[in-house]
Amino acid sequence: MDVAVPFDAVDPKSRLSGVFDADERTSFARVLLVDVLDAVRATGHEPTVYATGPVAVDAEVVVDERGLDSLCNSLLDDPPVAVVMADLGLATPAALKRLFDAEGEVVAAPGLGGGTNALVVRDDTFSTDYHGVSIRDHRQIASDAALEWTEIDSLRLGVDVDERADLVEVLLHGDGEAPDWLRAHGFAVAVRDGRATVVRES
Amino acid sequence: MDVAVPFDAVDPKSRLSGVFDADERTSFARVLLVDVLDAVRATGHEPTVYATGPVAVDAEVVVDERGLDSLCNSLLDDPPVAVVMADLGLATPAALKRLFDAEGEVVAAPGLGGGTNALVVRDDTFSTDYHGVSIRDHRQIASDAALEWTEIDSLRLGVDVDERADLVEVLLHGDGEAPDWLRAHGFAVAVRDGRATVVRES
Repeated sequence: MDVAVPFDAVDPKSRLSGVFDADERTSFARVLLVDVLDAVRATGHEPTVYATGPVAVDAEVVVDERGLDSLCNSLLDDPPVAVVMADLGLATPAALKRLFDAEGEVVAAPGLGGGTNALVVRDDTFSTDYHGVSIRDHRQIASDAALEWTEIDSLRLGVDVDERADLVEVLLHGDGEAPDWLRAHGFAVAVRDGRATVVRES
Repeated sequence: MDVAVPFDAVDPKSRLSGVFDADERTSFARVLLVDVLDAVRATGHEPTVYATGPVAVDAEVVVDERGLDSLCNSLLDDPPVAVVMADLGLATPAALKRLFDAEGEVVAAPGLGGGTNALVVRDDTFSTDYHGVSIRDHRQIASDAALEWTEIDSLRLGVDVDERADLVEVLLHGDGEAPDWLRAHGFAVAVRDGRATVVRES
């Protein structure tokens, strides 16, 4: 099965611009990508990166500027296809294996905030719509096409690393390079008002 | 196995005070509790509510004002014991069954922000410490006692409903009374800046 990992190489992790400078965002986004690629490979699948521009990683990289839905709907012409987001900083081989091995014509891992963090599609009548509340839209698209829909209940696939609050999850639960990168750049877990958060030591 | 559901009956859901008035907080906290109790029962286990004050629900209620760790460490004298938080608004019988059935002397479902949203403890040498980054502390306590530690990777057990941002998860994924309660009180999913959030219609 093809495992596509779409990647924004032009302005990655823009919601983290209050936390990282531009070079750090580029570097951190690449580290997250590498962690996802490693986790995919450990399941026995070979990932392909579909990037909006050149990116130097040890994987096949296809530069494709069409946007996420155009890209996915082109890939879906030839199922089965998996689409795994590049910023799943907690993804493990075990979590991805549950996704890849689950039965269903469409298998989805919901993300926090209504996203669809990973998909397996086994029927070419499905199409993606990643804008807005994509998990709800994807459920509806599958239902309208009378396709068997399966959801994977995974916190590790449910956290995409977009915002400052997500960094604490990477530090607490990540097992790739991303938590090391964060620590090397001065980030640490702290407790404020009884909740875990990240602080940056300068 | 005893399944304990601790419940703050005195000042529930205080972090939602910007969203709900005091009566609504009390009402919503009770609805979340009822959903959790229903999900526990559907696994074949009978829950006991340990509340800091009286609460009217269809379950055995023990009023215990000692605080979470004192309560849990008293319960842990007689393992096996499960402790399930009362605000897991996305919990399903399937997710709880994975928790209850998992092997391990200590089985934990991590929550977002470093919490420990559910625990199964099968050895009385374990103790709890829910303050601070409890999932990290619980891992360490198990390790120090040479206990077998298992983590359950579940988004449905990972989301505890504490803050406004959590309400959108209940509306999108909850399957008990809580999403109905939110809709009846005017809450709906909306998209702002490409992310799902909740709005309240007045």
